[in-house]
Amino acid sequence: MTTILRGNIIHAPSLGRLETLERGYLVLEDGKIQGLYSVLPEAYRSLHVEDYGEGLILQSFADMHLHAPQYAMAGMGMDLPLLEWLDTYTFPAEARYADLDYARRAYRKLAADLIACGTTRVAMFSTLHTDATLILMEELERSGVTGYVGKVNMDRNGGKNLQETTEESVSETLRWLDQCHFEHIKPILTPRFTPSCTDALMEQLGRIAAERGLYVQSHLSENRGEMAWVRELCPDCGQYWETYAKHGLWKSHTIMAHCVHSDEREQRAMAEAEVLAVHCADSNVSLCSGTAPVREMLERGVWVALGSDVAGGAILGMNDAITASIRASKIKSMETGAAFLTVPEGYYLGTTAGHRYFGAGAGFAAGDRLHAIVVDESRFPEPVRALSLSERLERALYLMDSRDIRAVYSDGRKVLG
Amino acid sequence: MTTILRGNIIHAPSLGRLETLERGYLVLEDGKIQGLYSVLPEAYRSLHVEDYGEGLILQSFADMHLHAPQYAMAGMGMDLPLLEWLDTYTFPAEARYADLDYARRAYRKLAADLIACGTTRVAMFSTLHTDATLILMEELERSGVTGYVGKVNMDRNGGKNLQETTEESVSETLRWLDQCHFEHIKPILTPRFTPSCTDALMEQLGRIAAERGLYVQSHLSENRGEMAWVRELCPDCGQYWETYAKHGLWKSHTIMAHCVHSDEREQRAMAEAEVLAVHCADSNVSLCSGTAPVREMLERGVWVALGSDVAGGAILGMNDAITASIRASKIKSMETGAAFLTVPEGYYLGTTAGHRYFGAGAGFAAGDRLHAIVVDESRFPEPVRALSLSERLERALYLMDSRDIRAVYSDGRKVLG
Repeated sequence: MTTILRGNIIHAPSLGRLETLERGYLVLEDGKIQGLYSVLPEAYRSLHVEDYGEGLILQSFADMHLHAPQYAMAGMGMDLPLLEWLDTYTFPAEARYADLDYARRAYRKLAADLIACGTTRVAMFSTLHTDATLILMEELERSGVTGYVGKVNMDRNGGKNLQETTEESVSETLRWLDQCHFEHIKPILTPRFTPSCTDALMEQLGRIAAERGLYVQSHLSENRGEMAWVRELCPDCGQYWETYAKHGLWKSHTIMAHCVHSDEREQRAMAEAEVLAVHCADSNVSLCSGTAPVREMLERGVWVALGSDVAGGAILGMNDAITASIRASKIKSMETGAAFLTVPEGYYLGTTAGHRYFGAGAGFAAGDRLHAIVVDESRFPEPVRALSLSERLERALYLMDSRDIRAVYSDGRKVLG
Repeated sequence: MTTILRGNIIHAPSLGRLETLERGYLVLEDGKIQGLYSVLPEAYRSLHVEDYGEGLILQSFADMHLHAPQYAMAGMGMDLPLLEWLDTYTFPAEARYADLDYARRAYRKLAADLIACGTTRVAMFSTLHTDATLILMEELERSGVTGYVGKVNMDRNGGKNLQETTEESVSETLRWLDQCHFEHIKPILTPRFTPSCTDALMEQLGRIAAERGLYVQSHLSENRGEMAWVRELCPDCGQYWETYAKHGLWKSHTIMAHCVHSDEREQRAMAEAEVLAVHCADSNVSLCSGTAPVREMLERGVWVALGSDVAGGAILGMNDAITASIRASKIKSMETGAAFLTVPEGYYLGTTAGHRYFGAGAGFAAGDRLHAIVVDESRFPEPVRALSLSERLERALYLMDSRDIRAVYSDGRKVLG
């Protein structure tokens, strides 16, 4: 089965490098990229072309850190710092997902909105509720979102409505893992963060990760208050990352959200272990956590991608996460002189860097199943002169929202449009 | 002629204070606010009520600084600092408005988009072109936008396609002023900024302002490179603001955009003269200008309002300018410890503080012509519990765009919905 798309193709094979093809062809065989062409090869000339005209064919977005239950409270409580915000807004909100009817409605909406704004791959936190987590995975699968979802583990400091015993946390995790039979949505172990998980729980999660070959996601060095708390809770660990490492949770493809205050040593530990650092710029500013040293991490060889961190970040659209990360890097640049993120770099971090987590290659790489969006620019102002494709990419990233996304391809299938 | 609106009314009579009325009534007589009521007074009970149900009736936005011609380049060139950005993107873009057909199309789109995103009052820069400026004013008038527009004056440093002689600048200004016969759009004198205007031109503009009782708008202390340039150009002035003051352009209701690097002395000069400082948070970050000392200015009694600064800022919607100013204030807070802007404060700055420029009172004040929007929340996620009106305001400011604005009232007239 051959599919041929035509449009203005823009992808980011490596950090800072854009490849563009004006009115080019993207050929798929059974959903896998066969090649990109300026002129359609002879062999395909008799086939139907899905012609998007002047539309931009971009890589879809990978949101490598967000909290599904918190979408319901997006844009609220932004006047509070992290730990108060968790207690006042987040934990009570998450407790609501014991209600499976509510969970179904809320997660169906989230799944639809993710596709509508062009996010086709995710690494996502659910709540501690096993059944609601399975519902979330079902709804993502149904809408065309692919990736990893974690039932959250937390056996301390969650308050009375959002806490498990260590035993429950482990047995529910195993029950959940046994029921994860989805084609495009896979489980990932998710100790919330060190203050939520006892050593005993971490130990067991480390064992499960090793036995079942599972990836792990959590939070790291987001906020100074949180870091001080971790030092208090784990006096045996020199740095925050070691509280994960000592239980076997710090390994290739472990996802660590935030890393705002990670110093050189912590960064080097990430680079060495092939941990993915997920930068969540909007959340870090809104919760007054700080601005992450993204340039520094990149220069030290840390693997960095982006997350919306809904609802520490208010906005689901990853184009906004990209521009937020550019803005945050400009703040950092004014402070430290480090070069800010350019638009091609931001685009790479919001797409290829995340897609790599799932085994994808460089940009629209041959052999990869297609993850792409088609952007229609007709709502944007008429420019004063002809624009280059890289200018059009920049404009789309700054201005677009779901109204401008005409089609979405996820894992080689057309899931919207 | 009596009009009665019903809905959830939220307004900001003073900095930091919200007044809310659940399912309340807003009564207008000939477009002027007669009163707000929880229970509709007897006298009105037989009249038709425009019932917006659960909709939020908010103050409309006042965008106190934006460049109309730059809307066409919104979201582009954001990788450049101010002075390079002006030369590479802005000045060539503005030169395009010699073409009146282009100007008509571009300004019609801008005017429609302003109303669609709930901005009913503006203080706006045009280009130096007299005829295109008149077209802009016509299109704003037609769409329902009210406020001030300025033909830009610039007799130096504009390059060959965007510069007037001093004589042309003055005579074109007078020709323009003589043709400004619009009901809702008034002229404001607009020396672009000191590097664009010779002393001779400034002198004449000061005279015209005094003779005709006109307000003035310009830029101030946006960027350190610009400030150094001003010191070089005007060695006789101790501070940037004095380059305006010495020509009579620093007076009550003079609008100064940015004020990022205004120190205590410059701030005190603003407070004393009743100059309006317009904070443009997104632009200041994107062009690496800095983060303005908004809290400091407010504490020193400076009159501060907000601007989108399109296209130094990429986004036209003033709800985004409000959340951008909150984010910028959090950055500033992390640097200096100054309290960040709360949501009620941001809402005040984006509404009442700007509306005051036009003589309006505190929030939805009796006697004022109505400037309001109605927000429909149905696109937002279902919350986990009932929300207060102040939470709903916060959510709307963070999440809404033009899709969510169901009706717009400008100067007492319904202009959308």
